[in-house]
Amino acid sequence: MTHPDLTSTLAYTHQNHDRFLQELKDLCSIPSISTSPDHKDDMQRTAEWLAAKLHSIGMTDARVIPTPGNPVVYAERKSTRNDVPTILVYGHYDVQPPEPLELWSSQPFEPEQRGENLYARGASDMKGQVMASIDAVDTVLQNGALPCHIKFIIEGEEEIGSPHLRDFLVANRDLLACDMALNPDAGMVGPNTPSIVYALRGLSYFELRVYGPKHDLHSGSYGGVVHNPAQALCELIAGMHDSNGTVTLPGFYDRVRPLDAEERAELARLPLSADHFQQETGVSELWGESQFTPIERVGARPTLEVNGLYSGYTGKGSKTVLPAWAMAKISMRLVADQDPAEVHQQLLRYLEEHAPKTIHWEVTPMSGGAPCITDRNTRGTQALVKALETVWGSRPVFKREGGSIPVVGDMQKILNADSVVTGFGLPDDNIHAPNEKLHLPTWFKGIDALVHFFYYL
Amino acid sequence: MTHPDLTSTLAYTHQNHDRFLQELKDLCSIPSISTSPDHKDDMQRTAEWLAAKLHSIGMTDARVIPTPGNPVVYAERKSTRNDVPTILVYGHYDVQPPEPLELWSSQPFEPEQRGENLYARGASDMKGQVMASIDAVDTVLQNGALPCHIKFIIEGEEEIGSPHLRDFLVANRDLLACDMALNPDAGMVGPNTPSIVYALRGLSYFELRVYGPKHDLHSGSYGGVVHNPAQALCELIAGMHDSNGTVTLPGFYDRVRPLDAEERAELARLPLSADHFQQETGVSELWGESQFTPIERVGARPTLEVNGLYSGYTGKGSKTVLPAWAMAKISMRLVADQDPAEVHQQLLRYLEEHAPKTIHWEVTPMSGGAPCITDRNTRGTQALVKALETVWGSRPVFKREGGSIPVVGDMQKILNADSVVTGFGLPDDNIHAPNEKLHLPTWFKGIDALVHFFYYL
Repeated sequence: MTHPDLTSTLAYTHQNHDRFLQELKDLCSIPSISTSPDHKDDMQRTAEWLAAKLHSIGMTDARVIPTPGNPVVYAERKSTRNDVPTILVYGHYDVQPPEPLELWSSQPFEPEQRGENLYARGASDMKGQVMASIDAVDTVLQNGALPCHIKFIIEGEEEIGSPHLRDFLVANRDLLACDMALNPDAGMVGPNTPSIVYALRGLSYFELRVYGPKHDLHSGSYGGVVHNPAQALCELIAGMHDSNGTVTLPGFYDRVRPLDAEERAELARLPLSADHFQQETGVSELWGESQFTPIERVGARPTLEVNGLYSGYTGKGSKTVLPAWAMAKISMRLVADQDPAEVHQQLLRYLEEHAPKTIHWEVTPMSGGAPCITDRNTRGTQALVKALETVWGSRPVFKREGGSIPVVGDMQKILNADSVVTGFGLPDDNIHAPNEKLHLPTWFKGIDALVHFFYYL
Repeated sequence: MTHPDLTSTLAYTHQNHDRFLQELKDLCSIPSISTSPDHKDDMQRTAEWLAAKLHSIGMTDARVIPTPGNPVVYAERKSTRNDVPTILVYGHYDVQPPEPLELWSSQPFEPEQRGENLYARGASDMKGQVMASIDAVDTVLQNGALPCHIKFIIEGEEEIGSPHLRDFLVANRDLLACDMALNPDAGMVGPNTPSIVYALRGLSYFELRVYGPKHDLHSGSYGGVVHNPAQALCELIAGMHDSNGTVTLPGFYDRVRPLDAEERAELARLPLSADHFQQETGVSELWGESQFTPIERVGARPTLEVNGLYSGYTGKGSKTVLPAWAMAKISMRLVADQDPAEVHQQLLRYLEEHAPKTIHWEVTPMSGGAPCITDRNTRGTQALVKALETVWGSRPVFKREGGSIPVVGDMQKILNADSVVTGFGLPDDNIHAPNEKLHLPTWFKGIDALVHFFYYL
């Protein structure tokens, strides 16, 4: 379809910037931390806030649907036209825990505007992106006939691996039927570089516990005869990479789809050099498989990370304890065509082969999701290319994302819908870290781009 | 000197068992945890309680002496005789932190008697031993002329490495002048095996921090290009032992005094087989340098232990963080003639040689003490041999202790006084662990033995 002149449409958007921002602040004030059972009520409250918001802009059937975990928010609005596609907008309203709190300059759930940024947990990942989508649809709904049918699904468990979303998609296949999905849960490469993500890494997350003596021991009385579980855990973890940073789990790379020369050349065009990664992270030297460039290592290679370590005495001062147990949270980022269930087996096999008889160990799988890779030439992707180019004045880059958005693969499999993956967060947004923020000028541009997207479909 | 018939003297001891026990419970009710600044007031309260107690049994000059840290309790009583030695009784009133609290069957600072045991933090290490000494002196004071001059020094910082005791000994050299020290801070090999310790391991305690990116990162966006500090820490720790359990710090064994055949034969007579250690700790297989027996590894070989590990997210559930830093508490148990300051340098050299350039590290020395080894034929030791044999009906064993009592070496150096090291705690007392307890029948025997000791000198 041809699109109408959007000047007057976007005037509405721009006139409502203050309201959009205030509503985003309201949403970011609710501590919807999905990993902690203490926030059960906040999850419900956030879902109800969103359903009410969707209803208020003119979406129909806006409601909170219970799941065995946190509820899902659903809403839809049919176009009066029949020859238009159905877009399913995906979002999540849950956020990462804010700890360590002492490193925040302002309170994580008291949004604070400083300069061009809004600081709050979830501002970038992804309450800001959810509200950008809602605000764009709000604009489109003011402008007469809808250019497409629109549905929303906003879940509350993304940050804990979406344990109930797959079942929800299966159970609500008809309700969620669509031609494509829009998923704005990815970020931009830089404020002047609109980005589209065509591949996402999957995730396998585990808790590994190593048990030694039946209780904590005096390190003087038993040091030298009992294998220290903290030491044994470190030995096991140290063995999970070789000196090149390659993961040693048996069979880990067997299914990894190799990069071809064309894709390597394309990835090399991204403004994501070693310098970029050093500047973003502050490290003096990068690390990882030397035969791949940094962007290849993050996007196209699987990795294994220690996300947490705990054993013995960690308070102030000293305690001469030989701890009874030690724990690590360990996760792998996966690329096509690895399978999370197979990686679980590979971890178990590694431990069976390497754990000494002096300790016992236990692995608890926590969450996971398959990696995925999509076609760059779909109708939705091409509409987004045009929309981003219109607003930013430069052609978007195509990127493989290091992070995981398991729902993209699930929607492919269950709803038979490809996702268009984008977003308006920036690399320095500190997502999953203290002082998360959202760059507001970029966010406002993002709303404009999404308005265009709906008309360019 | 010949000793009087002790039957009537010990009748006093036995008549007062209930009071002795009640007073021990009172002392164990004060949470005198030296490692936590929150317990400053409790430390003062415990010191005052002990000074009052010492005054009440007839000690003179009983008082609480301030130090830059926790106060020291002092008391003395001169014999009316001139031809008797001066004994300095050492003790500490501070205790280890009780965590993890959820593993205690009763509250750590609400002493509970169950069967023959008294459960409380500090009951065995070493409030029970301090009270046994006081109760023995109480008995001796009821019995006419003192068989020796007696002094007490009870410190409040042993569990944090006695950071102010050395200065205190130097500053109070005259006040503390003595012919020998009695130190009941060691344990027995078993309830029927009274024990005298002639060698103690020293200690070097450190906090090692590894720093990576400037803040926590999203493990998806940066996993594969940034060296994970938790992983780097594990790699460094894993390299600190070889596959035989031998410590790899450069020069670590250079000063270790070798065991000769006679001492190895004597240590082999102790009822401390591999079975014993397995039973005490519940591990299915022991660990450590294969060319030494378990008792040799604990008593005569230095070791390196991880006492604590912390990094990233350690709460419930999952968080996909690439942590900014990781921490380990690491301590070495030292044997004669290792030097804690040299071991500090050896750790630094190991880290300089092995730490990768992808991270930064920092070592904070926490506490330390020299190892020591003493003559088994001193007057004090021989008196104790006789006293223990009288009460238990069997000759005590001589043992090298795996734990550290730095004050023994300090008293040797500063006061020129050898210590007689013994104690009435048992291997299953769970010292430094949940459910610490004291075996009361053994404790009562210990009081009797100390009464004999003073008369046998």
